[in-house]
Amino acid sequence: MTFPAANDPSGVSGVVPPVCTPLTPEGEVDVASLLRLVDHLVEGGVHGLFVLGSTSEAAYLTDRQRRQVVEAVTGHVAGRLPVLAGAIDMTTPRVLDHVAAVTAAGADAVVVTAPFYTRTHPAEIARHFRLVARHSTVPVIAYDIPAAVHTKLPAALVLELARDGVLAGLKDSSGDLDGFREVVMGARSMPGRAGFAVLTGSEVVTDAALALGADGAVPGLANVDPHGYVRLYRLCRAGDWAGARAEQERLCTLFGMVGVGDPARMGGSSSAIGAFKAALHLRGIITCPATATPQIPLSPEETQKVEKHLATAGLL
Amino acid sequence: MTFPAANDPSGVSGVVPPVCTPLTPEGEVDVASLLRLVDHLVEGGVHGLFVLGSTSEAAYLTDRQRRQVVEAVTGHVAGRLPVLAGAIDMTTPRVLDHVAAVTAAGADAVVVTAPFYTRTHPAEIARHFRLVARHSTVPVIAYDIPAAVHTKLPAALVLELARDGVLAGLKDSSGDLDGFREVVMGARSMPGRAGFAVLTGSEVVTDAALALGADGAVPGLANVDPHGYVRLYRLCRAGDWAGARAEQERLCTLFGMVGVGDPARMGGSSSAIGAFKAALHLRGIITCPATATPQIPLSPEETQKVEKHLATAGLL
Amino acid sequence: MTFPAANDPSGVSGVVPPVCTPLTPEGEVDVASLLRLVDHLVEGGVHGLFVLGSTSEAAYLTDRQRRQVVEAVTGHVAGRLPVLAGAIDMTTPRVLDHVAAVTAAGADAVVVTAPFYTRTHPAEIARHFRLVARHSTVPVIAYDIPAAVHTKLPAALVLELARDGVLAGLKDSSGDLDGFREVVMGARSMPGRAGFAVLTGSEVVTDAALALGADGAVPGLANVDPHGYVRLYRLCRAGDWAGARAEQERLCTLFGMVGVGDPARMGGSSSAIGAFKAALHLRGIITCPATATPQIPLSPEETQKVEKHLATAGLL
Amino acid sequence: MTFPAANDPSGVSGVVPPVCTPLTPEGEVDVASLLRLVDHLVEGGVHGLFVLGSTSEAAYLTDRQRRQVVEAVTGHVAGRLPVLAGAIDMTTPRVLDHVAAVTAAGADAVVVTAPFYTRTHPAEIARHFRLVARHSTVPVIAYDIPAAVHTKLPAALVLELARDGVLAGLKDSSGDLDGFREVVMGARSMPGRAGFAVLTGSEVVTDAALALGADGAVPGLANVDPHGYVRLYRLCRAGDWAGARAEQERLCTLFGMVGVGDPARMGGSSSAIGAFKAALHLRGIITCPATATPQIPLSPEETQKVEKHLATAGLL
Repeated sequence: MTFPAANDPSGVSGVVPPVCTPLTPEGEVDVASLLRLVDHLVEGGVHGLFVLGSTSEAAYLTDRQRRQVVEAVTGHVAGRLPVLAGAIDMTTPRVLDHVAAVTAAGADAVVVTAPFYTRTHPAEIARHFRLVARHSTVPVIAYDIPAAVHTKLPAALVLELARDGVLAGLKDSSGDLDGFREVVMGARSMPGRAGFAVLTGSEVVTDAALALGADGAVPGLANVDPHGYVRLYRLCRAGDWAGARAEQERLCTLFGMVGVGDPARMGGSSSAIGAFKAALHLRGIITCPATATPQIPLSPEETQKVEKHLATAGLL
Repeated sequence: MTFPAANDPSGVSGVVPPVCTPLTPEGEVDVASLLRLVDHLVEGGVHGLFVLGSTSEAAYLTDRQRRQVVEAVTGHVAGRLPVLAGAIDMTTPRVLDHVAAVTAAGADAVVVTAPFYTRTHPAEIARHFRLVARHSTVPVIAYDIPAAVHTKLPAALVLELARDGVLAGLKDSSGDLDGFREVVMGARSMPGRAGFAVLTGSEVVTDAALALGADGAVPGLANVDPHGYVRLYRLCRAGDWAGARAEQERLCTLFGMVGVGDPARMGGSSSAIGAFKAALHLRGIITCPATATPQIPLSPEETQKVEKHLATAGLL
Repeated sequence: MTFPAANDPSGVSGVVPPVCTPLTPEGEVDVASLLRLVDHLVEGGVHGLFVLGSTSEAAYLTDRQRRQVVEAVTGHVAGRLPVLAGAIDMTTPRVLDHVAAVTAAGADAVVVTAPFYTRTHPAEIARHFRLVARHSTVPVIAYDIPAAVHTKLPAALVLELARDGVLAGLKDSSGDLDGFREVVMGARSMPGRAGFAVLTGSEVVTDAALALGADGAVPGLANVDPHGYVRLYRLCRAGDWAGARAEQERLCTLFGMVGVGDPARMGGSSSAIGAFKAALHLRGIITCPATATPQIPLSPEETQKVEKHLATAGLL
Repeated sequence: MTFPAANDPSGVSGVVPPVCTPLTPEGEVDVASLLRLVDHLVEGGVHGLFVLGSTSEAAYLTDRQRRQVVEAVTGHVAGRLPVLAGAIDMTTPRVLDHVAAVTAAGADAVVVTAPFYTRTHPAEIARHFRLVARHSTVPVIAYDIPAAVHTKLPAALVLELARDGVLAGLKDSSGDLDGFREVVMGARSMPGRAGFAVLTGSEVVTDAALALGADGAVPGLANVDPHGYVRLYRLCRAGDWAGARAEQERLCTLFGMVGVGDPARMGGSSSAIGAFKAALHLRGIITCPATATPQIPLSPEETQKVEKHLATAGLL
């Protein structure tokens, strides 16, 4: 099964984890661990995979490593479920190189942010997505992540690009549920709307996003507990909101693990990705919990806190 | 002549323009124009060249184009003056790939920012520069550009890394002259300080930065008027502050060109880099004023305003 | 009925509109219009009133006018429902003066932000709320509004202050539903938790906030359509999530009115408050749609757009 | 001597310290200490006084205390030098109340920021200053302090308001020397320019600001060492740039005291104002080093660091 075309009403939906990238102690991609992680996710019932996202440490992987990740995952998955790949870079020409690389490596769709590093403008953001889509052979999904790129994609712009067939979907990691709802409502009433996938990146208001009409979720924590997020998704789809809320609250408590890292010693990325990888290591899924440089590793005490979170959530 | 080693007291100094990257209408590097621009700068008396900086549109150039730029410039300059090259990317592993590439292409030093895209932390920034320096065969200059990377390099951190021999210099595009002075004063009193180069990225308070002790300047506008900045530098070094101020004020007025682009239509980068390239085109130095995508081109009216700025400054 | 004490489990809950402050063309409080607006809200079934909030233009009202508003509203309401009053100012000593004034004027609780204008710190924010609570004779509700005060109240701090009896509630206008949920879940499991009211300031994800456990909502748009928000609240309380979503989506569309003002001519506050007041004027509830200086008035065309929004929502 | 009228070419100039407000342990204004501080400044040779600025803790003083400060200082100074007073509040109507109060209390000019707390817009900022000037009987000086109000006054707007006679001067605490120079150069070439005073708020690049044409400086550190800033001003006016730089660097080192407060325990305001007051207390000028709530007091160890700074600067 390949990713549906931009005009296919079946779109991507459900739980699509941003797949962590296990590393060796030397900082190389640990392919065996990566494939064990993919199996863990597929067995957990997820509906798609997103490689080379922020949780995948795409910002830290070299071009060679990025290619290695996409090839390994698409080869292993072999069409059983769609594989989205990030093409994370500063501007159009550089993004287009990544789009070509991940497409050649088998990705079913690309996920692209607004330009960053450079000062930008809504007109330039629109031009960026239009140029990327024109040169991409696979659907383009916009990645709204202001914490990384320091601009917010305006809902009106996303909808304009959706209407024009430029975008096949939105992965919203902005934390702005107001704007997210505007896209959901606008996409629904789009003339000839077909397959525009609206996905939330939230771990902790996934139920709310699904309740208001999201097609799916891309929660980093689904690496650690895919079964939980799949259960949550099914409860929401079944309209069992009380059950969904209970499952969501269990996951919210588990998500507390992202705060184990001492903020005097490290940034939020080191702490959150460090915790996910520590959890995957503690659960026996990956061989080594190392994060990419220059992130700061968790201390043994911080790793113990991750272990406690897993125990509380019934995952050990 | 190669760039002085990190411990060489002669350090880089003087006027070191961040060299624009002329493009063809198709977005490829126009090497002939690039070399004409380099000749124009060398004839203007500049003391070094900085390729692949922000003004060079490094954020927009593909890896292939970046290599092409460094090879062309270092080959052409052939050691007559030092060539610094940006290694602009998100994190340590990716930066190290660029460091290797630009060094292989002949750069005499690399210019490196704090991590971006990812959430970071002072401890991670320090680790980043330490790792880059450990793996670089040429001196490493820190690039402080909060408008692009959304963190400010603290003066104390820069000085700590200077003292430890990690950094050979600072290129400060932060606009924060207070912090800049702290680095200048701290570097001067550094035990065994040798060749730590403190460079300002400012176009309009270059005289002030030199007056308080900067070693040199990296003004984007020096592409357009290298003679002006070299004159300014010499007046400052000669202690002719009245003369320096007059020259600086002429350059300030010229710098007004960065605002020609209509902010309703484009961002600050499109306007500023568009103006520099339009000026170089109008002065007959480069063949085509195109900027990289997704930047918005200047309109004919906006280009006329650039022309007026050149006329006022006596550059046409 | 007065506002419940901080330790009263009945807490404030339901729909608590931040009451607009009608002005005369000369910028004075139009008390007659204010009381008509209060009647309109009470008849709409709201559960409390919040005067001197951001939507009330508290930042624009003089101390004399603030007193006038509280006295007029508490006198008119006469205990039929609780009246919360903002005590919006920069730091503890100035806030305490407002707390004394609004309490003397009859307010049942005060709503207080983190310090602003001055650079602040979590320890100073905690000290601020502790000092305000120590000197207040009525319950203190924290007002989390980073768009105004440029700091976000951390969930952990809010919960610490709730546990210590410093805060009687939270009015969250941060747009951060993740942090909001953390407070909701933390407050629920608080030992001896009693009457800590968690209120959302959102107009467009009110249903989501109530679904995850909020006690109530403080939506500015409830000035225009109190009946809609009261219906929404009742549908949520009844667990009719499909009905709630339909009502919420009608209100989301109506909320589009906040964008009628041309962003080239005015800021977001002029547009949003201008739209609410235009709507109240068009609905015949207030005499004059004027906003306080230096806000920019809506043009006739912009006011017509408000009228269209009202018509679409069935409010004309 | 009163402050020159807006159209008086003599303008305010020289060193104009933002006067600290000494407090009693109970948080009341210590008038005796305030007048001793004023005497210390006048004896130091300063050219004017700025009360109720940010360094004066205006954001923390109640209306009663603000009035008390202005009355005490203007009464004591009795026209010997001009007294500028801050009218720091959120919007036009509230600012106008302060303007009336400080004018009644004898201030010779008012210092006014852009609106804050509320979301604003350049058109609203312009309208704000125009309305304040229309209703003020004394000259209005714009206070550009983005760290406090979260908008930067654009140079073009300041110059437009200067040309129209709305503003009599600018007090620039933005740290943006580029924009400052634009105002200095624009003001100089203003047709009929008369007495528009361009003042820097910087402690550490005061020499640079004066070198590029500033009329004066408003450095908080001048509370501690007025003689130093007056010497610096005279050296700059005499064109002795080497002497000026030496004096400035001594003051830069002294200014290091603003960092004595532990950032884990307190914010930058607590640390900086705490250090100034500790220094004034150690120098025997004020009776008590207390800062206003909710600021965190310096520890004895932090106060010792202030003492060391004073000793190094030869001030003990």
